[in-house]
Formats: sequence, C-alpha cells, structure tokens
Amino acid sequence: MKELILRLIEEGKYVKARKEIIDMNVVDIAQFFEELDKQKLLVMFRILPKEIASGVFSYISNDLQRYIIESITDKEINNIIDELFLDDAVDFLEEMPSNVVKKVLKNTDENTRKLINQFLSYPEDSAGSIMTIEYVDLKKEMTVRQSIEHIKETGIDKETIDTLYVTNENRKLEGVISIRKLILSDDEKKVKDIMKTDIIYISTHDDQEKIALLFKKYDFTSMPVVDNECRLVGIVTIDDVVDIIEQENTEDIQKMAAMQPSEQEYLKTKVITLAKHRIVWLLILMISATFTGKIIMRFEHVLQSVVILASFIPMLMDTGGNAGSQSSTLVIRGLALGEVKFKDVFRVLLKELQVSLLVGITLSAVNFIRIYYFEKIDLLIAITVCISLFFTVILAKLVGGTLPIIAQKLKVDPAIMASPLITTIVDAVALTLFFTIATHLLGI
Amino acid sequence: MKELILRLIEEGKYVKARKEIIDMNVVDIAQFFEELDKQKLLVMFRILPKEIASGVFSYISNDLQRYIIESITDKEINNIIDELFLDDAVDFLEEMPSNVVKKVLKNTDENTRKLINQFLSYPEDSAGSIMTIEYVDLKKEMTVRQSIEHIKETGIDKETIDTLYVTNENRKLEGVISIRKLILSDDEKKVKDIMKTDIIYISTHDDQEKIALLFKKYDFTSMPVVDNECRLVGIVTIDDVVDIIEQENTEDIQKMAAMQPSEQEYLKTKVITLAKHRIVWLLILMISATFTGKIIMRFEHVLQSVVILASFIPMLMDTGGNAGSQSSTLVIRGLALGEVKFKDVFRVLLKELQVSLLVGITLSAVNFIRIYYFEKIDLLIAITVCISLFFTVILAKLVGGTLPIIAQKLKVDPAIMASPLITTIVDAVALTLFFTIATHLLGI
Repeated sequence: MKELILRLIEEGKYVKARKEIIDMNVVDIAQFFEELDKQKLLVMFRILPKEIASGVFSYISNDLQRYIIESITDKEINNIIDELFLDDAVDFLEEMPSNVVKKVLKNTDENTRKLINQFLSYPEDSAGSIMTIEYVDLKKEMTVRQSIEHIKETGIDKETIDTLYVTNENRKLEGVISIRKLILSDDEKKVKDIMKTDIIYISTHDDQEKIALLFKKYDFTSMPVVDNECRLVGIVTIDDVVDIIEQENTEDIQKMAAMQPSEQEYLKTKVITLAKHRIVWLLILMISATFTGKIIMRFEHVLQSVVILASFIPMLMDTGGNAGSQSSTLVIRGLALGEVKFKDVFRVLLKELQVSLLVGITLSAVNFIRIYYFEKIDLLIAITVCISLFFTVILAKLVGGTLPIIAQKLKVDPAIMASPLITTIVDAVALTLFFTIATHLLGI
Repeated sequence: MKELILRLIEEGKYVKARKEIIDMNVVDIAQFFEELDKQKLLVMFRILPKEIASGVFSYISNDLQRYIIESITDKEINNIIDELFLDDAVDFLEEMPSNVVKKVLKNTDENTRKLINQFLSYPEDSAGSIMTIEYVDLKKEMTVRQSIEHIKETGIDKETIDTLYVTNENRKLEGVISIRKLILSDDEKKVKDIMKTDIIYISTHDDQEKIALLFKKYDFTSMPVVDNECRLVGIVTIDDVVDIIEQENTEDIQKMAAMQPSEQEYLKTKVITLAKHRIVWLLILMISATFTGKIIMRFEHVLQSVVILASFIPMLMDTGGNAGSQSSTLVIRGLALGEVKFKDVFRVLLKELQVSLLVGITLSAVNFIRIYYFEKIDLLIAITVCISLFFTVILAKLVGGTLPIIAQKLKVDPAIMASPLITTIVDAVALTLFFTIATHLLGI
C-alpha cells in the first residue's frame, strides 16, 4: 500500500493519496512521512483531516515537527496545537528552540498558552512534565446514566476514557471509576456508591522513576496527578510510562558503561556529542589506571627478576574486572527495580562472599592445572598466581556487590559504581597482593 | 491501616479485618499477605470475597501460591482457578512443580483444563504463553446499542473491555473497536461501519520481544493474537508487556556483564545458581586472557630491558576496554530498541571512527603531557605509549561498534558481544602493537 501511495504522490494525485493514507495507523503515517520528500510531505500533511494531522504530528521526529511549524501559516499552527493533547504539545515544545516556541505560543489561544507555560515550568522528568489534562471528570452525585451521557458529550477530546475521575466543585479528587465498572452498573446507581475512594495518586513533582514503579506494581493504565491540596491537575497514561521505562533503562545502561547518558538515538547523535559524553570518564579512568601502573613500578625489582610474572597481569586484571562487574551489574539492576534496598547490604555481602568462594576456588583450580601441568611453570609461581586470583575474585565480588548500595545511600547514582570504577579499585589491590605474595613466596 | 488490620488479625477478629482489607488494592493485599504468619494468611485468604481472592492470588509470590494450593480443599482450588484470568492461571502453573500442577488440573473444569494445557504447550516467551482469552467479541452486524448490551452481559469476567474485537462465526478476526468509539457513536450505527479493519495483530508463536516493540511503537493497551488461519485465539494486554520489557532489559544487562541471564530477583536467587550463571563466562574469559599474557611473554626481552613498560599495561588495557565497551553498549542498546539495523553497519563504523579520532587524540595528548612533563619519562617511551594508546582507542571503538551488529546478522545475541569479549580482543592487539612499537622505537 505504501508503494501505491508513493506513486500517487509522485503523480501529484494528492487527494487520492489522502484517501488511502487515512486508513493507516497514525504511527505508520508518521513513519511514512519521515521518508517523504519535504515539499510533498508538507502538501500531504496540510490535506490530512484535522484529528489525524495532530496525531501524526505527535509521532513525527522533532526535526520534522520543527520544519512543519516553520513552513505553515499561523492559523494552521493554531489548529494543530488546538487538536494536540496537552502532553504531546508540551513534549514537542520542550525540544524546540525558543524562536519556534515563541512562534507557536503566539498563535495559541490564551487558555492553552497559559496551560502550556505552566506545564513547561514543571521540573524535567516530573509528573507535571508528562501529564495531560484531557481526562473525563464526573461528579459523585451523577447517576450512571448521566455519567455516560457526560462521556458522550465530552469524550471526543479526551486522551482516554478507560478510567474516569470523580472531583468535587473545587476539583478535589474524590474517587476513581473504570469505564467497565460504569457500564456494568445499573443506570440509576450513583457514582459515589460504585467509585473507588482509596485512590493511589501521584504529585506534580514526583519523579518519573517513581511513577514508573507505581505503574509497574499496580498494573495501572492511567494515574491521577494532584497538587499539594489534593486537587486533580492531570493524568499520566501508560504509553508515556512505557517510554519512560525504556528511557531510564537506556540511561542506566549508558552510565554503567562509563558514559554521560544521552536521550537521543545513537544514529541521530552528532559525533562531537558522542565524544563529549565519553571523554570525561575515559580521562578519569585513564588517570586512575596510571595509579595501578605505579603499583607495578613499586615492584619493579620483582618483575625484573621474574619477568614471567608480567604475563599474568592481564589475566588477573580481566578476571577481577569481570567478576566485579557481574556482581555490581546484578545489584545495580536490583536497586533500579526496587528489589534490593540499603538494609539488604549485609545479605548482599554474605551472598557475594559465598558466590565468590565457589567461583574463586573453581577458577584458581582450573588455572593451577593449566599453569602447572600444561605450561609446566614453576610450582611457587603457579601458587602465587592462583592464590592471588582466588583473593582477587573474592575482593572483586564483595566490592562490586556493595559499592552500588553504599552509593545509593550517599545519594550517588549506583549505576556509576559499575565496571569501570570497580575495576580500577580491584586492579590496584589485586596487583599489590600479587606482587607482595610473589615477593615472599619467591624470596625476592 | 495495615497496623489496624494486623491488630485485628492478632486478636482473632478476622471478619472485622476482612472488612478493612477489601478496601485495599489487590496488589497491596498481596504484599500484606507476604508478611503475614502463614496460618493467619490461610484464614484471611479463605474468607476473602471470591473475585478479590483470585486477584490477590495472581499477585502473591510463587512460594505462597504453592503453599495455599497445598493447604486448601479441592473445591476451593476449583473456585480459584475458575475466577483467575487464564494468563494468570498459566503464569502460576508454569512455575509450579508437576505434583501441584496435577493437583490443580485435577480440580479444574474440563474446558478450562483443556485450555490451560493448550496454553502451557506454547513456546516459552511466545505470544501464546502470555495471552489470555477473556476478551469481548462482537459481531459486525450488531448495532452500538446491542454491543453495549452484550458488554453489560458478558463484561464482568473479561480482562479488559477497553478494546473490543469483531469476529465472524468462524472466529475470524474482522475488526477492532475501542470502547470510546463505541460509546461516542449513535446507538443505531452498526459495528461494521465504525470498526477499524486495518488491524495490527500478533501470531501465537511471535516472540515476546517483537510484541513489546509493537506495543511501544503503536502505544497500544492490548493486541489481538491470531492463529495461522487468522482466527482470534486471545489477547495480550499492556500490563504483561510492561513486565516483558523489564525482563528483556534485565536479561540484556546481565548478558552484557558476561552472565547467563536469570529471571529471578537477585536476593531470591540461590548462591549455587548465581555461581553457575557466572562461572562459564569467567572461565572462558580467563582462558582468553592468558592468550594476552602469552603476547607479553613473546616480548619478554623487551620487558626485561625496559621494565617500566610494564607499568603502562594496565592503562592501555583499561582504556581500550572502556573505550570499546562505550561503543558496544550504545550499539547493543540501539539494536535492542530497533534504532540500529544491519544495514547501518557502515554508518556506525564511520561514526565510531570519527569519535575515536577525537577521543584518541585527546587521551593521547593528555597522557603525553602527564608522562613526559610530569613524570619526566624518556621521550621515546612517552611517544611509544601515546601512539599505542591512540591506535588502541580507535581499534577498540571500531571493534566495539561493529561486532554487535555482525553478531546479530549471524543470529548470535549481540548483548554477548559486550565489554568482556571485546576487551579480550582489543587487549591482545593493543599489547602486540605496544611492544612492537617499543621494539622499533627503542631499538631493542
């Protein structure tokens, strides 16, 4: 079907193309537009029916949104913003340079403009910045029949009618009720008799991570947002929360790889930005690795007499690093999902101690067999290496398992306490241990 | 309120406690039960109203589910399974040992038993294993009024009525319609005139990763599952997809840290299981690190004469490793989110080349200043180190950026091509380069 529509557009048969395109899902229309020539896109966009146009607008890339805004008339801007759900309008404006924001707001109705400005002023990543106002509110004295009438009259502009919110004349949130409950109840029942009064809600300044945890825990599809006087100011819907979850995960993953997190897609990020996000940690870790190098130099005389010891440095460092990051990764993830808390720090220590004993013994044994029997290396050297390996693994896992928890307690993002930082610490101690044991066992 | 309920239970005032507890959200009741003494829990659970009991049952831990099943009568088991949504029943039985499964199925109605067995036979992590059958189906000749009547009659047992599915007499999927569209349409309109016929659906054997991507892309709250004859066999709802997304993310994160992934919570995983999931990769990587050690021994004579070169080994290895994992992490994440594809491999190569040039030059320059001016180390050695560092960073980023993409093309999970594996490859080349340059520049 896409090829057909493309062909119609090429031939200038825009009205026929429109007829085909409005059957597509708005997400697919948006994707299709991304690949169109910009001039043709503008024509197609302008002849879309209003409701579809705004839906498509909310799904196209920021670059394309900007291009369209800069190319259409003021009246057309007014139409789009008018049709957009508030959270989509705010999402879009958050990413625009100030001249575009000014142009848009200049051509927006006063009420909408006030709302947008208010929402733009909420802290980034807070409930306020992702909520929307297009919810259905009912009064508790309404009957089911009246409620459904009300939904019929007002529902067309709402983001969702799956959950309905009961407020009093001061907009204070008094109850919630699902559309299912409403439909399944007798027409003459009053809302106050069937609504849920024990409401789980969020506040405008709640962080999006906390919101995501609530959605995940209770399997909600939407949640009410209240201000500090318990007045309903907006709702957050599950589709935004799914995006948040992915965003938070991507951030954590990037931090664990020693990078400053970026929200942009990899292929769309400029080279200079990628470099900036990586260089800081690379410099820090490079400098700290020189510290490990100094430890080696402190034992220069040991190396000089038994040069073969140098060949075990990579194996010790790598194994320590991998062992440590296995532990820290699991704990960081556990902290992020709320499965591990600070009070668990001793349980984690104990677990990691036991795991490291099992793993350390296995690795040391395998290594000993390899070094002594296969490589036929001197017994004392083999013992030195294996003892060092054993203690390195234990240390790595203990440090890797507990540093993230301590970090969170000190209000530092535990994801930073991942592989690179832990590796540096473990390396320094492991090599000190290695050369010290060598000094004594080999009588240097 | 929890303290009040606890007190009432302590005093044996179960009926009063029940009165308080049924106001709570089922998720919170489940959490509350986890902390109760098992005997008291059984009493409380048995006096819960049927619908609440099944909801709570679906949210408590597998251990508690098993305890309850093993403690209650056959008739009570029948009641629970009868009330449970099918996907929750299947989820629960998937985690039970076979004696519990037998006991449960023995006490289940024949139809339900057949369905459960059918669903248990779907491949793990497929649409079939996570779908449920409690959806509302309409016929296209129905009017809106008739549809709402139908929902009123059958809606009570359904998992969701937010989206309704239109099937013909052979259960073939003909359309979908949202409850909102239905309510907002005139009573006498026919379903076939207002339903969506361009349906985006999933097949019973589709992998859950693919399903999650569709939900994310289209912002769905539920999707229909069809068999190979396009007959509707079930639906997948957004709450299950949110769990899948987190599960897939946790799996990827664990794989990137060189572990065999585990679905269990960290604190609930046995020590022996944790050790098993870690040991394989640790062994593999330890063995491959010895390869790097051999490279060092090949240049034993170089080390012997310029021992100080050994002190730069950690810095080279660590920087190479970090640089490489920064690139591989971003690309692996991009592949997982569908933002990077195989056809992008040359774009990625080019991007990483540019980033590595910027980063490599910066690191080498800083390092040179440190080594030559601050540490006052011999010029030729300083140059050796910095040139090696520069090329190591470039190599690390090129390898790190492209190996995951190639892995996916070869149908290997790209998440495995992360830090540990890439580090090993980069280390070997980096050290070979380092010592080779040293040999020539320092005339050894």
